[in-house]
Amino acid sequence: MKLIIDRAALLKPLAHVQSVVEKRNTIPILSNVLLRADSDRLALTATDMDIDVVEEVGAEVSQPGATTVAAHTLYDIVRKLPDGAQIELTEDEGGNRLTVRAGRSTFSLATLPTEEFPALSDGDLPHNFMLQAGELKAMIDRTRFAISTEETRYYLNGIYLHAASNNGVPVLRAVATDGHRLARVEMPLPDGAAGMPGVIVPRKAVGELRKLLEDSEGDIRVALSETKLRFQFGDVTLTTKLIDGTFPDYERVIPTGNDKTLQVGRKEFAEAVDRVATISTEKSRAVKLSLQDGMLVLSATSPENGTAIEELEVAYGAGPIEIGFNSRYLLDITTQIEGDEAQFSLADAASPTIVRDQADESALYVLMPMRV
Amino acid sequence: MKLIIDRAALLKPLAHVQSVVEKRNTIPILSNVLLRADSDRLALTATDMDIDVVEEVGAEVSQPGATTVAAHTLYDIVRKLPDGAQIELTEDEGGNRLTVRAGRSTFSLATLPTEEFPALSDGDLPHNFMLQAGELKAMIDRTRFAISTEETRYYLNGIYLHAASNNGVPVLRAVATDGHRLARVEMPLPDGAAGMPGVIVPRKAVGELRKLLEDSEGDIRVALSETKLRFQFGDVTLTTKLIDGTFPDYERVIPTGNDKTLQVGRKEFAEAVDRVATISTEKSRAVKLSLQDGMLVLSATSPENGTAIEELEVAYGAGPIEIGFNSRYLLDITTQIEGDEAQFSLADAASPTIVRDQADESALYVLMPMRV
Repeated sequence: MKLIIDRAALLKPLAHVQSVVEKRNTIPILSNVLLRADSDRLALTATDMDIDVVEEVGAEVSQPGATTVAAHTLYDIVRKLPDGAQIELTEDEGGNRLTVRAGRSTFSLATLPTEEFPALSDGDLPHNFMLQAGELKAMIDRTRFAISTEETRYYLNGIYLHAASNNGVPVLRAVATDGHRLARVEMPLPDGAAGMPGVIVPRKAVGELRKLLEDSEGDIRVALSETKLRFQFGDVTLTTKLIDGTFPDYERVIPTGNDKTLQVGRKEFAEAVDRVATISTEKSRAVKLSLQDGMLVLSATSPENGTAIEELEVAYGAGPIEIGFNSRYLLDITTQIEGDEAQFSLADAASPTIVRDQADESALYVLMPMRV
Repeated sequence: MKLIIDRAALLKPLAHVQSVVEKRNTIPILSNVLLRADSDRLALTATDMDIDVVEEVGAEVSQPGATTVAAHTLYDIVRKLPDGAQIELTEDEGGNRLTVRAGRSTFSLATLPTEEFPALSDGDLPHNFMLQAGELKAMIDRTRFAISTEETRYYLNGIYLHAASNNGVPVLRAVATDGHRLARVEMPLPDGAAGMPGVIVPRKAVGELRKLLEDSEGDIRVALSETKLRFQFGDVTLTTKLIDGTFPDYERVIPTGNDKTLQVGRKEFAEAVDRVATISTEKSRAVKLSLQDGMLVLSATSPENGTAIEELEVAYGAGPIEIGFNSRYLLDITTQIEGDEAQFSLADAASPTIVRDQADESALYVLMPMRV
C-alpha cells in the first residue's frame, strides 16, 4: 500500500472511526484501524466487535493494498501534523510497518495483519428505508437520556426502534426507559419500514451515531435485520449489532386517564427547578411540586442545607395536588422540549405523570413520581 | 444581618472565595463562607485553615451583622438566579437560618455560628512591598509547572520566593523544582523586599492566587513574615500559611560550565517534540535529541508503537551529542517561553541542561536528561 493524502482529508474520517476504538483493549487488533487503499480511495474501518464504522475518502493511491495500525496513535500523529501537510502512507516490503511521512517528520508504525481484523459479517439486511438526518438526530436526542445504565437490565440499555400505529396512523417509534422515566418519540413511518422487526439499538452505537451525525444533513439510509442495523450517509457507514432481548410492553406504563392538566412556561419552569434543586440532597435530587389554582410552588428540603421555595404562575385548575420528582429527570425532559410551553398530565401523587411539548405531539415523556 | 445586593455584585466575590473551600470537609464550618455586613459593605471570607480569601463588595446594609452558610450552596443559588436579580439576605431572629430571597425564589439556609469560623490569626507581617499583577502572574506561570507533587518532599510542594543577587544586582526570585526540572525566574527587587525571609508558597495557594489574578491589573500589595504571606489587590485579600521547611540550595543544581549552545525556533521545536512524543510510551514520554552541525534530529521509539523521527534545522556547531528528555517537561518549558527562539546550553548526555528564552534573561530552566 502506498498513497498520498491531504492532512485535513485524512483527519476527518480518522477522527470519526477512531472514536469507536476503546482506549484499552486486551485484543491488540481491536486497537487498530484498518486502512484499505483501492484505485483512488482510502477506506478506514474501526470496530469494537459490536459496532463498526467505515469511512471512505479520496486519496492519490499509487499502490493499492491494506494494513492495520494503532488507531489512536495514527489519529494523534495526523492531528499534530501542520495544517496543509501532504501525508504519505507507505507499507514496508515485509508488510509489518507502515511509514507515515510528512515534511521532515517520519513515523514508522507497527502493523498487524488485516486477516486478524474482525469483520461484522454482513449478512442480509432485508428492511430498508430512508430518514432525514434532522429526524434521526431529534429521535436520538429526545430518547437517549432515558436509556438505562443498569447492566442487569440489558434489554433497557438502548433505544427501542420499531414500527407502530398511533390512532391508526403508521409511525416509526423510538422508546427508551430506565424504569423511572420513559421517552417516546415518533414520526410518520418511512416507506419500506412497514414490517420491520422491533430492534434495540445499544447505547454506545447511539452515541457514536449521534457524533457522526453532528455535521450531517440530508438522507440517511437505514438497513436492518433482527440482529443488525446499518446507517449510511455521506462517506460513512455505521453497522451495529442489536441487543438480543425483549423490550418491555412500554404502552402499559403510559397512563391514559390522567385528568389534571398543568401548563407551564418551559424556560421559567426549568430555571426554577434547577434553582430549587440546589438544596436537594445529592442522592435524591427530589423537588416537590405543589399545585393549586393558577399557582405552582416548587420546593426542596434537606436536613443539611435548608429549604428552597419558588412560586410560578401556571395554567392549572384541577384542584390541589402535591407530587415529587427527581429534578434531574425534570430537567432532562425540559431540555428536550423546544416549544415555549410544557404540558403535564397528572393523576395523583403516586401515579406516573405525562409530560409533553405543548406545541409538538411527536414526543411524550412519562415520569414516575418520588415520595417527598 | 439584613442587606440587599445585586446578583452580579455578589456572584463575583462569591465565585472567588468559594474556590478555596474544599468539596468535602469533615469539619462542617470549613464548608461555609463567612458573611459580615457592615455599614455599606459585605465582606465574604472562606478558608481551608491554610489559606483564607476575603473579598469585599458594596451592599445596601439595613442591619449589620455576620453569619456563615454553605459556600458552594450559596454560590450555586446566586449563580442560578437570573441576571439583574436583587438579592435580599436576612438572618433569622434566632440566628440559625439565613434567608436568601430574589423575585419569587426563597431559600432558607442552615447557618453555623461565626465564632466557629477559624481565623488565620493575623500576626505581624513585617515585610511589605508592591508588585505589578503582570509581574506576579509571569513569576507564577513560569515556575508553578515545576512544583513537586511528591508529598514526602513537602519542602518542594511550592514556589520558593526570596531575595537574591544576580551579578551584584538585587533580585526577587521565584524557584520551583521537582528534582527532574527546575524553573527560576527573577525580577528587580522591589522596594521593601530587601531583608525578607525566603518563603515557600504552597501549591494550592499559588493556584488560588493565580485564579484571583486572572482579571486583575495594577498593584499587588505583598506582606509577609516567616510563617505567613498576604496578597492584597482590588477588594481581595488572600492570606496563606507558608511551608515550614528548608528549600534546597538550588544554585548547586544549575550548571555553569555547559558550553554546547543550541538555538532553536520555539514553535517548530515544540510542535516537533509533541509529534514525536506521540510514539513514546506513556510512562517514559522520552524523546531523544541528536545534534550535529546545524541539525537536530528528534526521535522516539516504543516497542509497541514503532518509531518517530523529525528533523529540524538549528543553530548548533559544538559537535555531535545525543541526549534524552521527558517530552512533557520540554513542552512545559517551551510553553512558558514567549520569544521566538529557545536557547539550550548542554554539557553531555548525563548532565543537566539549561534552557532559556533567547530574548529574555529573567527566566532560566534546568532539565535533567533521561537515558534513552
